[in-house]
Amino acid sequence: MTRGVNVIGIGSTRFGPQPNKGIVQLAIEAAEAAIRESGIERERIGALYFGNFISGPLTGQEVLAGIVADNLGLPNIPCTKVEGACASGGIAFRHARLAVESGQCDAALVVGAEKMTQAPSAMITAALNCAMDNRSDGVSGLTFPGFFGMAWRLYEQRYTLTRAQVSAVVRKNKANGLLNPIAQMGRALSDEDIEQSPFICDPMRLFDCCPTSDGAAALVLAADELVTTGGAVPVRILASAQTRGAARIAGHADLCSFDATVSAANRAFKEAKIDRSHINIVELHDCFSIAEILDSEDLGLIPRGQGAQWAKEGRTAVGGELPINPSGGLLAKGHPVGATGVGQIYEMVLQLRGDHSNQVKGAAFGLTHNLGGTGVACTVNIFGRHDA
Amino acid sequence: MTRGVNVIGIGSTRFGPQPNKGIVQLAIEAAEAAIRESGIERERIGALYFGNFISGPLTGQEVLAGIVADNLGLPNIPCTKVEGACASGGIAFRHARLAVESGQCDAALVVGAEKMTQAPSAMITAALNCAMDNRSDGVSGLTFPGFFGMAWRLYEQRYTLTRAQVSAVVRKNKANGLLNPIAQMGRALSDEDIEQSPFICDPMRLFDCCPTSDGAAALVLAADELVTTGGAVPVRILASAQTRGAARIAGHADLCSFDATVSAANRAFKEAKIDRSHINIVELHDCFSIAEILDSEDLGLIPRGQGAQWAKEGRTAVGGELPINPSGGLLAKGHPVGATGVGQIYEMVLQLRGDHSNQVKGAAFGLTHNLGGTGVACTVNIFGRHDA
Repeated sequence: MTRGVNVIGIGSTRFGPQPNKGIVQLAIEAAEAAIRESGIERERIGALYFGNFISGPLTGQEVLAGIVADNLGLPNIPCTKVEGACASGGIAFRHARLAVESGQCDAALVVGAEKMTQAPSAMITAALNCAMDNRSDGVSGLTFPGFFGMAWRLYEQRYTLTRAQVSAVVRKNKANGLLNPIAQMGRALSDEDIEQSPFICDPMRLFDCCPTSDGAAALVLAADELVTTGGAVPVRILASAQTRGAARIAGHADLCSFDATVSAANRAFKEAKIDRSHINIVELHDCFSIAEILDSEDLGLIPRGQGAQWAKEGRTAVGGELPINPSGGLLAKGHPVGATGVGQIYEMVLQLRGDHSNQVKGAAFGLTHNLGGTGVACTVNIFGRHDA
Repeated sequence: MTRGVNVIGIGSTRFGPQPNKGIVQLAIEAAEAAIRESGIERERIGALYFGNFISGPLTGQEVLAGIVADNLGLPNIPCTKVEGACASGGIAFRHARLAVESGQCDAALVVGAEKMTQAPSAMITAALNCAMDNRSDGVSGLTFPGFFGMAWRLYEQRYTLTRAQVSAVVRKNKANGLLNPIAQMGRALSDEDIEQSPFICDPMRLFDCCPTSDGAAALVLAADELVTTGGAVPVRILASAQTRGAARIAGHADLCSFDATVSAANRAFKEAKIDRSHINIVELHDCFSIAEILDSEDLGLIPRGQGAQWAKEGRTAVGGELPINPSGGLLAKGHPVGATGVGQIYEMVLQLRGDHSNQVKGAAFGLTHNLGGTGVACTVNIFGRHDA
């Protein structure tokens, strides 16, 4: 006894350093844009879910859901911050969708935000490490570049993987970022640029890593009954799955695959009742270049061991058979952690409306993928055009 | 088309300094106890909601929902941390109940935890201030004792309020705490003890303030269909309401009343379909002595201006007409922030089973109240015995 839920309004700040704006201001800007575009009256919004990861340690501000609702002049509704490390934004989206689908309310607001660039880099690294189980992994000196670097090393032992293949992922996403007006660091890079950039954590070089960022994104979701013909083109939510995986490295059976992604994708496709072959566009969690490769295989969209070669052959570029991260992804668009999962949906909605600045022609079905920690939390969402 | 949801298992650590245990260990202990008592198989648990406020700033550990689920050996289920300042635990409970009620799953686990006492007091104060809108209130030097001190001053201008009346609240809760084996600081206090304790923030003295604490509490919720006759006595959830209020002082029309509490109580009673006169026992958010007075009036349980006098006359003691905080409340049981809202329900379930160490005789209906920040978030829950 569920009902259809749609994205009827979207908003986003630019991603990247915004030294003159705090996290609350960023969140309000994105939310105001989404509400305005949706055309909905504030009184119709029945729940707010806020995705944020490390505002406490980095900005000294929590209870963001209530503060932002108050500033927006929303009614006296339940306002909840949710956290699941880098998947916080995707988790916020899923809960807003559940609130509308289950009839708790007819419309809900989702906001994701993070403010990071004001902090010294050592503090940022420490805050990001809140996403590991620090009784084992963090205390052993592990960082996230180290974690994904180990996955890279294992992957290249098992499959064919060249530096040039991985660089193709970086080149694609940085080039896509150039076409995205809200991206942090789109850039035309040569393989040489990438492969001579400084090591962050061998084999990971600077351009293999997403930048820290500031930013916010927001969405208004509404039940079918509230969709009007006058407003922005609504996009259908076909599925939203949230899963968990191992919390520490030793719990993973295989570092080349994250169970949480595999199971979230399987559940999402089952719910959406479409095949993987229907997906025209993917926004996935490329926190590092190697992550895009692992994710695309875990999602079941590219055969195991071929993710990097697909990028090298241009098959994941806009114009290829499976465009991945036309937004620039985390690598180029930036990764304001709590905003990322919401920002992916912002990009997807633009694509399915046909309004994206790096448009995938004829895109009818899209998938977003948001991964937290060392694979401990994941959300996969599937969207469709109403006429698809 | 909703279905009945019950608390079928409860667990809690002792509240108070636990220097040898981290937040994850505390949470696991409480959760294991709740699961054990419920008699449920882990595979039946379909969602985990984790209430926590400031684990990031104080312990450097986030993504607690996934970490704890992993350690408990729960299946691959959605695991979500929720945050709403001091109301985080109540918000976690509400979401677990929604998950079962709406049919997302048949059973859900709620955990609330906080680990505070290892931090220097200045760091704790700074972390607690994450619950204010720091663009206005925090930056002006406001702290929570200061905020509630202002409310006290306004209240005593408006109504009759003596130091002896407020001390009666403190004496009652500290004495109740003596009877609670998991309370942090039950104590037999004279009015003189209270009134000669050092000022924290005039008019607030030491014993008017709840202590910082470590601790965790957990609950297993299940749909009616899963309730068996063999396990612990199930307690019915009659209502759960979550609301928001003003995020900053200047937004409150009246500092003697928190809109979020008033509206949450009204919604909860409407959902529970019982009158206020049916409530036999209350666990409410007495972060400060004055807060118990304000809360009891905002909940509509005691007429305006009479909350303190009711305490003085013993009407809110166990054996009185409306026992408030027989557990000792935050003042004596302690306030490990994210655990508090869950711990209140732990106490209520013991009472409605007839198993509490400070039992209210014949208690059939109870209410729990959890308030966040300067009134920005609130949950009110109502429970009933199955035979009531």
